[in-house]
Amino acid sequence: MTDHSRDEIDVAVLGAGRIGRIHAANLARQPGVRLKYVVDVNREAAAALASEHGAQAVDLDAAFADRSIGATVICSSTDTHADLIERSVAEGKHVFCEKPVDLALERARVCAQAVERAGVICMIGFQRRFDPTFAAVKARLDAGEIGIPEMLVVTSRDPGAPPVDYIRRSGGIFKDMLIHDFDIFRWLLDDEAETLHATGSCLTDPAIAEAGDVDSTAVTIRTKRGRLCQINTTRRAAYGYDQRFEVLGSQGMLQAGNVRPTEVAAYTARAVSTDVPEAFFLERYRAAYASEIAHFFDALTRGTPVRTTIADGVKALELAHAATLSWREGRAVRIDEVSA
Amino acid sequence: MTDHSRDEIDVAVLGAGRIGRIHAANLARQPGVRLKYVVDVNREAAAALASEHGAQAVDLDAAFADRSIGATVICSSTDTHADLIERSVAEGKHVFCEKPVDLALERARVCAQAVERAGVICMIGFQRRFDPTFAAVKARLDAGEIGIPEMLVVTSRDPGAPPVDYIRRSGGIFKDMLIHDFDIFRWLLDDEAETLHATGSCLTDPAIAEAGDVDSTAVTIRTKRGRLCQINTTRRAAYGYDQRFEVLGSQGMLQAGNVRPTEVAAYTARAVSTDVPEAFFLERYRAAYASEIAHFFDALTRGTPVRTTIADGVKALELAHAATLSWREGRAVRIDEVSA
Amino acid sequence: MTDHSRDEIDVAVLGAGRIGRIHAANLARQPGVRLKYVVDVNREAAAALASEHGAQAVDLDAAFADRSIGATVICSSTDTHADLIERSVAEGKHVFCEKPVDLALERARVCAQAVERAGVICMIGFQRRFDPTFAAVKARLDAGEIGIPEMLVVTSRDPGAPPVDYIRRSGGIFKDMLIHDFDIFRWLLDDEAETLHATGSCLTDPAIAEAGDVDSTAVTIRTKRGRLCQINTTRRAAYGYDQRFEVLGSQGMLQAGNVRPTEVAAYTARAVSTDVPEAFFLERYRAAYASEIAHFFDALTRGTPVRTTIADGVKALELAHAATLSWREGRAVRIDEVSA
Amino acid sequence: MTDHSRDEIDVAVLGAGRIGRIHAANLARQPGVRLKYVVDVNREAAAALASEHGAQAVDLDAAFADRSIGATVICSSTDTHADLIERSVAEGKHVFCEKPVDLALERARVCAQAVERAGVICMIGFQRRFDPTFAAVKARLDAGEIGIPEMLVVTSRDPGAPPVDYIRRSGGIFKDMLIHDFDIFRWLLDDEAETLHATGSCLTDPAIAEAGDVDSTAVTIRTKRGRLCQINTTRRAAYGYDQRFEVLGSQGMLQAGNVRPTEVAAYTARAVSTDVPEAFFLERYRAAYASEIAHFFDALTRGTPVRTTIADGVKALELAHAATLSWREGRAVRIDEVSA
Repeated sequence: MTDHSRDEIDVAVLGAGRIGRIHAANLARQPGVRLKYVVDVNREAAAALASEHGAQAVDLDAAFADRSIGATVICSSTDTHADLIERSVAEGKHVFCEKPVDLALERARVCAQAVERAGVICMIGFQRRFDPTFAAVKARLDAGEIGIPEMLVVTSRDPGAPPVDYIRRSGGIFKDMLIHDFDIFRWLLDDEAETLHATGSCLTDPAIAEAGDVDSTAVTIRTKRGRLCQINTTRRAAYGYDQRFEVLGSQGMLQAGNVRPTEVAAYTARAVSTDVPEAFFLERYRAAYASEIAHFFDALTRGTPVRTTIADGVKALELAHAATLSWREGRAVRIDEVSA
Repeated sequence: MTDHSRDEIDVAVLGAGRIGRIHAANLARQPGVRLKYVVDVNREAAAALASEHGAQAVDLDAAFADRSIGATVICSSTDTHADLIERSVAEGKHVFCEKPVDLALERARVCAQAVERAGVICMIGFQRRFDPTFAAVKARLDAGEIGIPEMLVVTSRDPGAPPVDYIRRSGGIFKDMLIHDFDIFRWLLDDEAETLHATGSCLTDPAIAEAGDVDSTAVTIRTKRGRLCQINTTRRAAYGYDQRFEVLGSQGMLQAGNVRPTEVAAYTARAVSTDVPEAFFLERYRAAYASEIAHFFDALTRGTPVRTTIADGVKALELAHAATLSWREGRAVRIDEVSA
Repeated sequence: MTDHSRDEIDVAVLGAGRIGRIHAANLARQPGVRLKYVVDVNREAAAALASEHGAQAVDLDAAFADRSIGATVICSSTDTHADLIERSVAEGKHVFCEKPVDLALERARVCAQAVERAGVICMIGFQRRFDPTFAAVKARLDAGEIGIPEMLVVTSRDPGAPPVDYIRRSGGIFKDMLIHDFDIFRWLLDDEAETLHATGSCLTDPAIAEAGDVDSTAVTIRTKRGRLCQINTTRRAAYGYDQRFEVLGSQGMLQAGNVRPTEVAAYTARAVSTDVPEAFFLERYRAAYASEIAHFFDALTRGTPVRTTIADGVKALELAHAATLSWREGRAVRIDEVSA
Repeated sequence: MTDHSRDEIDVAVLGAGRIGRIHAANLARQPGVRLKYVVDVNREAAAALASEHGAQAVDLDAAFADRSIGATVICSSTDTHADLIERSVAEGKHVFCEKPVDLALERARVCAQAVERAGVICMIGFQRRFDPTFAAVKARLDAGEIGIPEMLVVTSRDPGAPPVDYIRRSGGIFKDMLIHDFDIFRWLLDDEAETLHATGSCLTDPAIAEAGDVDSTAVTIRTKRGRLCQINTTRRAAYGYDQRFEVLGSQGMLQAGNVRPTEVAAYTARAVSTDVPEAFFLERYRAAYASEIAHFFDALTRGTPVRTTIADGVKALELAHAATLSWREGRAVRIDEVSA
């Protein structure tokens, strides 16, 4: 275990891009947490972010060499995640890492084993579990408000597709986009998938098909206890970022709806109109990002478990892998075909 | 063609049960339509319904023998539908028949051929297409309001399961309950299924499993043009009859919501509450039942096509058949495996 | 008391205009009620309506002379109401009369005394009390769901002003339009006004000001028990007919909202839109009109009291009178200045 | 003008209570703003707040003596506001002051004159204008979305009354609570009151009546241009903090609704339920408080006008004064009776 003061946790943020800046700002607000280092191959980005928070821009080796660093927050590109997690835990540093652990299931599993051996905390950034609306549904489910959950319908739609170049390196829509929905599924139903069927289409941009991917998907999961889950996604919802789900239980239903920028309703001769949902994930999940970072450092401080472990990251990846297989082969897949 | 006055259509209602009484009351209100006969093996039920509308209770042969009868409205038990349709059209009488045409796909096809040969009108009672909310979505879709449709999510939940004895004779949930949703799918997307995957569980009552059926289903359809459709159903939604869908298009989304008995909102210390949806199909689709009967007789009078033909009945049955197969065999099914 | 069969009530509808046609159609559907006569100075209108329901068009004297007529339904112009009520009750016929009893408060009071002396039933057509949403709020209030009512806010807006010629003869906006809201106030709060303040403006059409009237009003009532009520109205809401209220109680709030033609929600890049409210009173209060007529004949049959008596008509008129006075003189008015 | 660096504004917060802490935290986040001093007669509170933000707790004289202080933020008790504003502006310091300027209209006017003579900025904390929903309505109104505004209905209800001891010193409900609503009225309609009528009742706690106040009020304002406004308030809404308004315009309506903690909807056998509104002003107006402080310092930095001046504070107080008079005397009041 790294030698750091009991009272303050020094942190290195690895990756000074968009999400790195968000995590840096959020962790800087945690009492007892100090942002000490920012690391990025883009030196200017690292320096800018560091100076904003009174931290230092250093290189990776320097950050890892500093035994006072108690935790790393990994926000670099996906292909570096597994290496950085392993290096962190090898140094006894706790880790918060953005999803996914890795695009390759086997690599992710190896990494998870390294974490387990190291005995440190590794939290994966499934921020949706920290969305106030989603978290409230989960709490009310757990309190038995609608009895036993039976069915889950997830609607998860982006406002627009990323550049095709990004899509080409993304691991495909199931690993890139639905991995969040697979995590939501596991979390809400407290159950594991038994079979999964996925299909998809390329409906918004032929270039996505040329890149070997789809932009619209429909996934069905049947769990070990026979519960059913349907997930529908698209890369392009013209009305914005659409993030909803509903859980049917034996005694009722809980719905999680979108958040709107304002509560204005306009009445005209043609319609009564309200705001479209928050524009994209940075807006919709602003509170969730703050809350997950607070949760991470709170867990470190108190020694309590984190809500989203690397094992969750591996499990979600298994489902993404199974979905990709199902879609490619046009058949329902048993999860034990892909799970360890 | 039956010899009846050009100005008035005389009608025989075959079946004096719950739905027969609804259709009788609705058709009695159509200008130019006269309910002449009510037929039911239950003589008392037939007599009661007939007397309510100034009609006569007669037996089947009498009804068919009367050449003045221009149309039959078939509301008897499912196993009689195909026979009664064929007998009606053989007599040159137009037919309105409750869904399904028959539980056996082959039988339904034979019946449809008989209708085609007879050249009379045979409308199948897919009343949901006449629901004011559903019909408004369809009209706005057709007007191009959200561009090209890409994805459809249908939520179709009953408030409670029928007796297991009914379930045993029902043909299974896909033919009994989802047949409506399959028709909605075809109607809204204006496209035909290419592949279908269905899964299900028995979650509400083990007796349903013992009867060889499920009570909760999740169906995914991919159309010939690559559009996606997901349908989720249950026999038991604790909060009532839940009938919604949403269509995602290239330029937006149209949602069809539930209808509530009143527009009261109650604010208390714990929650803001509104009414649960209308209790069941008789309440929710009251306007739709009136509207479909008006449509039928309007089509007869004007000689215009009906919105829901026997061909639609056969197509919906094919999907129900494919779904049953998919569920039983645990695999995705190509529709051309089951279609003629 | 008129000599009519115990089993069937014969009815004369006086006035074959828009509202007369609605009442005629509704009463024709009541079991045990027979529309026998239609009376209108416009002979053609009377004949048309009579023939639609198998009734006879007769003149006023013939209708009153027929002792088999058990009830009159008065839908003629306002200036005939009081006379026709008095003539009906003098003949021992029960009366359903559209609001108002008369534009002159003193005349209405004299008429109410005649009704009382005659001992027959006289129901005034405050149909809003029969709106399913409004009636549900009242029932839940009476059941104590939100404790003791403390405050009422009524929003009552027409989609467009009637012709100025109508306005000139209307008795002014408070008697013509707000009389319904005054009745709603009395009904919901189960309390009487102590003071009233009204103000108004002509904002939509200068011709209304030239006719000596206003098109927008704001009324405040304080009841004998200290409860508060605010009413806002306009002759012209661009988005349609807006009929809402909310009751604040010691333990919560009940809101009565508008009814929409359909439950469609449309999501586009700019907004999420739903239907505007039902267009005008004929659409919004369709169920209420049917229900009030059913209530009237049910009360006659069972001998139970009617929900909206001529005394209610006089009380609402008093408030309209007080409001007119308050508006004209620019001061708060004590109701005992105008009440008998 | 105080001699301070062009690049950074040093600030003294006067008052370390609940609202002082909020403003301190918000201003500490403004770039170019430094919280230098915290002043409070409660030394411990001042020290705690100062240490939280790296500031110093000093006494009033020390804060005013420091010429580097460019602005004061006044969050102390109401009876100190006018004195502290005058002392601040006499020292050439800009001022942000919580509402009201003073409970006495004449005193507030004298203070406003002092501000004018000094030529510094004095912003009054009408934070509601900065609520995202309210501000969006105002922007859309100004953009002409609903034509010319004609009517405003404001619902403003607290979740519970403050201690009677507070009420006794509050200046009465019109000055204490409705002053915000009067400001909203002036801001939204861009018009001034011509006449005002207020009434009220004590319905929630007799102790409030004993203190010479009411807890429920109904106010009507008619503006110089003939526009109408109704405000309804209560000290005790059982379902929480209710802050809504709607503006009717010649071409439509804009409604500003409440904000909910989450977007969960729960469906049970009895009802569909959503969250009650945010609990109270600290929650509901959290974003507004941050935004108004940002606006204040932005105005200082850019030399642009502030949205809520001391003149607005005086105008709102005039309306509160007129309302108190109207309520006490039971009559409509012309504003020129109370305005300067």
